Amino acid sequence: MGKVSARSEQILVSPIQKLIPLAEEVRARGTKIYHLNIGQPDLPTPEEGLDKLIHIDANILGYGPGEGYKSLREKLVKYYKGFNIDFSAEDIIVTAGGSEAVFFAFLASMNPGDEIIMPEPTYANYVGLAIAAGVVVRPVISHIEDGYKLPPVSEFEKLINNKTRGILICNPNNPTGYLYTREEMEQICSLVKKHDLYLFSDEVYREFIYSDGEYVSAGHLTEIADKVILIDSFSKRYSECGIRVGTLISRDKDLREAVMKFSSARICPPMLGQIIAEASLDVPESFYKNTYEEYLRRRDCLLEGLNSIPGVFAPVPNGTFYAMARFPIDDCDRFCEWCLNEFEDNGETVMIAPGSGFYSDTTLGRDEVRFAFVLNCEDLKRSVEILRKALECYPGKTI
Amino acid sequence: MGKVSARSEQILVSPIQKLIPLAEEVRARGTKIYHLNIGQPDLPTPEEGLDKLIHIDANILGYGPGEGYKSLREKLVKYYKGFNIDFSAEDIIVTAGGSEAVFFAFLASMNPGDEIIMPEPTYANYVGLAIAAGVVVRPVISHIEDGYKLPPVSEFEKLINNKTRGILICNPNNPTGYLYTREEMEQICSLVKKHDLYLFSDEVYREFIYSDGEYVSAGHLTEIADKVILIDSFSKRYSECGIRVGTLISRDKDLREAVMKFSSARICPPMLGQIIAEASLDVPESFYKNTYEEYLRRRDCLLEGLNSIPGVFAPVPNGTFYAMARFPIDDCDRFCEWCLNEFEDNGETVMIAPGSGFYSDTTLGRDEVRFAFVLNCEDLKRSVEILRKALECYPGKTI
Repeated sequence: MGKVSARSEQILVSPIQKLIPLAEEVRARGTKIYHLNIGQPDLPTPEEGLDKLIHIDANILGYGPGEGYKSLREKLVKYYKGFNIDFSAEDIIVTAGGSEAVFFAFLASMNPGDEIIMPEPTYANYVGLAIAAGVVVRPVISHIEDGYKLPPVSEFEKLINNKTRGILICNPNNPTGYLYTREEMEQICSLVKKHDLYLFSDEVYREFIYSDGEYVSAGHLTEIADKVILIDSFSKRYSECGIRVGTLISRDKDLREAVMKFSSARICPPMLGQIIAEASLDVPESFYKNTYEEYLRRRDCLLEGLNSIPGVFAPVPNGTFYAMARFPIDDCDRFCEWCLNEFEDNGETVMIAPGSGFYSDTTLGRDEVRFAFVLNCEDLKRSVEILRKALECYPGKTI
Repeated sequence: MGKVSARSEQILVSPIQKLIPLAEEVRARGTKIYHLNIGQPDLPTPEEGLDKLIHIDANILGYGPGEGYKSLREKLVKYYKGFNIDFSAEDIIVTAGGSEAVFFAFLASMNPGDEIIMPEPTYANYVGLAIAAGVVVRPVISHIEDGYKLPPVSEFEKLINNKTRGILICNPNNPTGYLYTREEMEQICSLVKKHDLYLFSDEVYREFIYSDGEYVSAGHLTEIADKVILIDSFSKRYSECGIRVGTLISRDKDLREAVMKFSSARICPPMLGQIIAEASLDVPESFYKNTYEEYLRRRDCLLEGLNSIPGVFAPVPNGTFYAMARFPIDDCDRFCEWCLNEFEDNGETVMIAPGSGFYSDTTLGRDEVRFAFVLNCEDLKRSVEILRKALECYPGKTI
C-alpha cells in the first residue's frame, strides 16, 4: 500500500499549475510576464466591500451559522429576483467559495462510484473535486469548430446508465466562454427530467454575457425546479476571489439537509468574506455596467488580435472572461512552456493555459490554449503582438 | 436509489445541533441562556489582528497561493520553535480552519474503506469528516472514572488490521480536557511505528494547558517524524474562530504533494483570515499569560462548583476549555433539552452539550455532559447554581 491515497494519485496536476514555479524563475530573471493564465480579475474590489471591512464593528471574530449569515442570504434572494430567478433564503447555503459548493453538492447527492456527465473542455477543478468525492466523470466533447456548442443529446444518452446521477454545466462556460441557448437549456432540462438526474449548474459568470442572446439560468427551468443545484460565487463578479465565499442553492429540503451535514462538519464559512460579499451586493448599477463595458472592450480587442494571427482560430465567446483558441502548434503544453521560458520580446512574454488541461482525455485539445482576458486592452494588444512573434519562431509550429 | 447520498445519511446530526433551533425559540420568549455548549471563546480577538484588518493595504482581494501565504508559514516556524517543535515553512499547508486540515489529511492519506482508530469520547466532527472521506472510524473508549486517560495499548491492537491506516488524537483533548502524558505519547509512538500507521494529532488547544505536566506534541516524536500529520488552528488560541484559518503540517513531501492536489482543487484558503492570523502571531507574551490565567480561574471555578453538586462527578481537566461531567440523570439528551426548554430559574437557564454526541456508539455517555468554560467566573457560578436547582427537580434524576 502506498504512502498516499489512490484518489490523490488520480488527481492530475494540470499543465498550467506545473508552469507556476517556472513563472517565478522567469520573473526572477527580470522578464515581464503578461498573465492571461488565471481567472483573477485585475479590476478593484468594490469600495462598498472594502469600506465595510475597515469599519468592521466586532471585537470577536467568532463562528457564524453553518449555512451562512441570514442577512446575506436574504439579500441574495433580491439579487436573484433581478434575473427572474426565484429562490428563498432557505434555499441558499453559503460556502467557502464556489469550489466548496461543488464539492458539497457532489458529496450530498452522489455515492462513490456514481457518475456525472459534463461537457468538455471543462474547468479542471470539477474533475479534482469529483475524484475527491469518489464520483466518476463521463465527458461529452464539445468542439472549437462550432464554438463549443452543446454536444448532441445523443452523446449524453450514450453515457447514461444506472450509475448516472447528474449533469454538470458551467454557463456561461469556463473555459470556452460559450453561453447555452434557450434551446440547449431545454434539451438539458428534458434529459434531466427523463432520466431523473440532478442538474449542477455553475453560473458564476452571469454578469459577463456579451451576446444579445438571453441568459437562461438552470434556476429558470421550473419543470426540474427540485433537481437543480445552482453553484455560485462572489469571486468573479466583484473581483474578490480571495474572500472565499460562494453559494450552493437548491429548492429540495432533503438535499439541503444532506448538504448541511457536510457543512456543519466544517462549522461555518469565512465570516469576514461574508461581510464583504454582503456589502458588495450594494454596488450601484454603474458598477456592473462599467465592468461589463470594460470586459466587452477586452473581449473584442483580444479576439480581433488573435484571429489576425496567421493560422489561429478563436471563436468569439458570448460570456465569461475566457476565450479558447486553436493555434498552429504541435503541442500546447510544450508551446506554453516555451513561450514562458524560452521566448521573449523586448524582455516580455505571456503566460497562457494549455488547452489539454481542460479535457479528461489529455490527448485532446493539444492545439488549443485558453486566455483569461483580465488585463486592459493595451496589455492585451501587447500580449497578442508577443504571441504573433512567438509563433513565427516557435520550433513546433505546424504552418 | 434515494435522493441524497448514503454517506450523508450516515452522518448523524449531533444532539447539540438539534438543540440550536430550540435555543432560538427559548431566547425569543425572553429566557436568558448561559451558553456552555460551544467552544466559541468570549475573549476579544487580539488587537494586532483587528488593527491589521482595518488598515488593510489592498484594493483587490485576490487569490493567494494554495498552500497559504509564505510570510504566514515562515512566522509559524518560529512559533513552533517556541515549543521546541521543528518544522520548516515547506512542511506547513494553510487550510480553511482545522476542519479542512483534518479532511485533507484523511483524503490524502487514506482510501475509502480504510480505517482510523480514535479514542472516544471525541470531537464529533472528526467522525463526520471521516464519513465524508469514506474512512471508517474504529473507536477505543476512554472512561470518566480515570479522567479519560489513554485506553490500554491492547485496546488499540485489538482493532488493528490490514485496513488500519492511522490513529487520531486530540491533545489536549476536546471534549475531555485530558492531556496525554509523556508515557502515553510514547505508547502511541510505538504503536504507530510498529504498525506503520499515520498519527493525526490535533493540538489546537496547546495554549490551554493547566497542569505542571509537560506538553508532549506529536511533533516531538522524532522516531515517527514522517508519520505525524499535525492539525492546527488559530481559532481557539486567538479567539478568531470565524476567520477559518488552520494548518496541516507534515514532514513527508509525498504526503504534502497529495494534500496539495485537494488544496489546489479549492484554489486557496481565505486571504483575509490569513492576514489576521499572521498579525495575531505578533501578540506579546502577556496576551498568552492573561488568557491562560483567565481560563485557569474559570476551570477552577467551574470544576469546584460542579463537584459540589450532589451526585455530580467531574474530573479536573488539565487542558482545553472543556470539561466533561457525570450527572445523576437518566439520559443526557433529555436532560439538556429539558434544561433548555422546560426549566428556568429567575428567567435564566443553561445550554450544555449532551455527552452522547461524543461517542460513535450513542448508547455510551448517556449520563455525561460537556461544558465549554467560555464564560467569566461570575457567569460560570450562576450556571452551576442553575444546574444545581435543575437537578433538584429534573424528573429523570437518578438520585
